[in-house]
Amino acid sequence: MSDSITAVEHEVLAAVLQVRTHVLQVLLWQRARKPDAGRWSLPGGRLGPDEDVEHSIRRQLAEKVDVRQLSHVEQLSVFSAPDRRPDTRMVATAFLGLVPSHVDPAVPEDTSWHPVDRLPETAFDHRAIVERARGRLRAKLSYTNIGFAIAPPEFTISELRTHYSAALGYTVSATNLQRVLARRGVLEPTGETAPPGRAGGRPAALFRFAAGGLEVTDQFAVLRPPAGPYAHSSVR
Amino acid sequence: MSDSITAVEHEVLAAVLQVRTHVLQVLLWQRARKPDAGRWSLPGGRLGPDEDVEHSIRRQLAEKVDVRQLSHVEQLSVFSAPDRRPDTRMVATAFLGLVPSHVDPAVPEDTSWHPVDRLPETAFDHRAIVERARGRLRAKLSYTNIGFAIAPPEFTISELRTHYSAALGYTVSATNLQRVLARRGVLEPTGETAPPGRAGGRPAALFRFAAGGLEVTDQFAVLRPPAGPYAHSSVR
Repeated sequence: MSDSITAVEHEVLAAVLQVRTHVLQVLLWQRARKPDAGRWSLPGGRLGPDEDVEHSIRRQLAEKVDVRQLSHVEQLSVFSAPDRRPDTRMVATAFLGLVPSHVDPAVPEDTSWHPVDRLPETAFDHRAIVERARGRLRAKLSYTNIGFAIAPPEFTISELRTHYSAALGYTVSATNLQRVLARRGVLEPTGETAPPGRAGGRPAALFRFAAGGLEVTDQFAVLRPPAGPYAHSSVR
Repeated sequence: MSDSITAVEHEVLAAVLQVRTHVLQVLLWQRARKPDAGRWSLPGGRLGPDEDVEHSIRRQLAEKVDVRQLSHVEQLSVFSAPDRRPDTRMVATAFLGLVPSHVDPAVPEDTSWHPVDRLPETAFDHRAIVERARGRLRAKLSYTNIGFAIAPPEFTISELRTHYSAALGYTVSATNLQRVLARRGVLEPTGETAPPGRAGGRPAALFRFAAGGLEVTDQFAVLRPPAGPYAHSSVR
C-alpha cells in the first residue's frame, strides 16, 4: 500500500440520547435523498475547513436540530470502514451526546426520537454508532457520575432509578442505587421533599448530583495518588 | 460555514507505551525532513484507501517500527485542530498501544524509547497525544484489568507493583494492590514461586492475569444485570 496522499471526506455524527417517557431514545432524521433515502440517519455533517471535530458537531447539532441543551458530549470512536457509505469514502468521527430528561429540544419536521431498542431502518453504519453510544453510556454509569447528564436537576431516588434503568436497559434496585451513589459522594440531598405521590406515604427526599462535570467516582482507592493534580482523573 | 466538500487528509498515529527499566516510556522517531525536522514524532502515517483506521495503525506499526507484539491497541481520540500541522490540513486518529515489559521490539535507527515524563522536543501536537495516552492508561488501570497488557505473563506482586507504579506515575502499596486485584478476581496464582531474591526470605508466589482481554472489573455490583450478554461490558 502506498503512502501517496489519500484525501478522504470527513464527517461528524452524534448519537444524541435522552430518557423520554422512561425509555432511552435517540434522535434521528429521515433521509429524503439518495443514498439510503427513507432511512434514518444520525445528525451531523461534513467537517468544515476552520473547525475541529468538537466545534463541528456542536455547530451542526445547533444548526440542524436545535439541540443546544446538551448536558454532555464526548467522542465515541472513528468509523472508517472503506465501504461504510456507497457513494464516497468518508471517515466519521462519532460522538455521544446526552440531553437531560427535563428539556424537550425543538427539532425539525424530518427529525424525531426513537427508542434505541426499537430502531427504524437506519442509514449506513448508524445503527452500530447508536449501539456504541449506548454501550459507552452504560459503562460510564458504572464508574462515573454521568447520571447527572441524563437526570433532571433534582429528583427522588425513585425517579433517578427510572433513569438508570432506562439507560442501562434493565431494572436496578432503588435501595442499592442510593446506597452506592451516596457512599461514593455522587449525590447530595437538596433538603427539600417532593410533593407526596398519589400512592400516599412519606414525602420522598429530593437529591441532586454533587458535581456538574464528568468525574471518575470509582477508582481503586489504593491506586489514587495521595493528593494533587490527579485527585480527580480526567475520564478520557 | 458551507457544506461544500472539504477533503482533508487523514492520518493514524499511535502512542506506544511500555514499562522499561521501571519507567513508562513511549516510542518516538526523529523527523529527518520538514516540517518539524529534528523533532520527535509518533509512529503512524496516512490512512490508505482500502483500510480502516485500526488496520492502518497496525499495518504502519508493523511496517515502520516492527512493533508486532502489541498486547493492546485502542482508539484514543481524534485530533483535528485546523492548524495542528503547518503544512496541510490533516485529521489524526490517535491510538494507545501497549507492549508488555518482557518483549523488546526491534526498532529502526531513527526510533527510540523516551520516558513520558521527560519527552524530547516533539512534533506538532504529539506531546498532547502522549499525555492523552498516559491519562487513558492511568484511568483504565483503576477500573479494568488492563495491567495484563503492560506486565509480563507471570510476575510476583512486587514486580506487578513496579509496573503499576511506573504507569500511574506514583508509588502504590503492594499489599493493597494485591488485596484489591485479588478481591476483583483479576489475578490468579500460577502455583509456582519465583527464585528467591538476593534479599533472601520466603520465595514469592507468582501470579498471572486471569483474562487476556480487556474487561471492566469495577462496575457497581448493583448496576450489573443479573446475567447474560452484559455480564462483561465492553470497555468502549
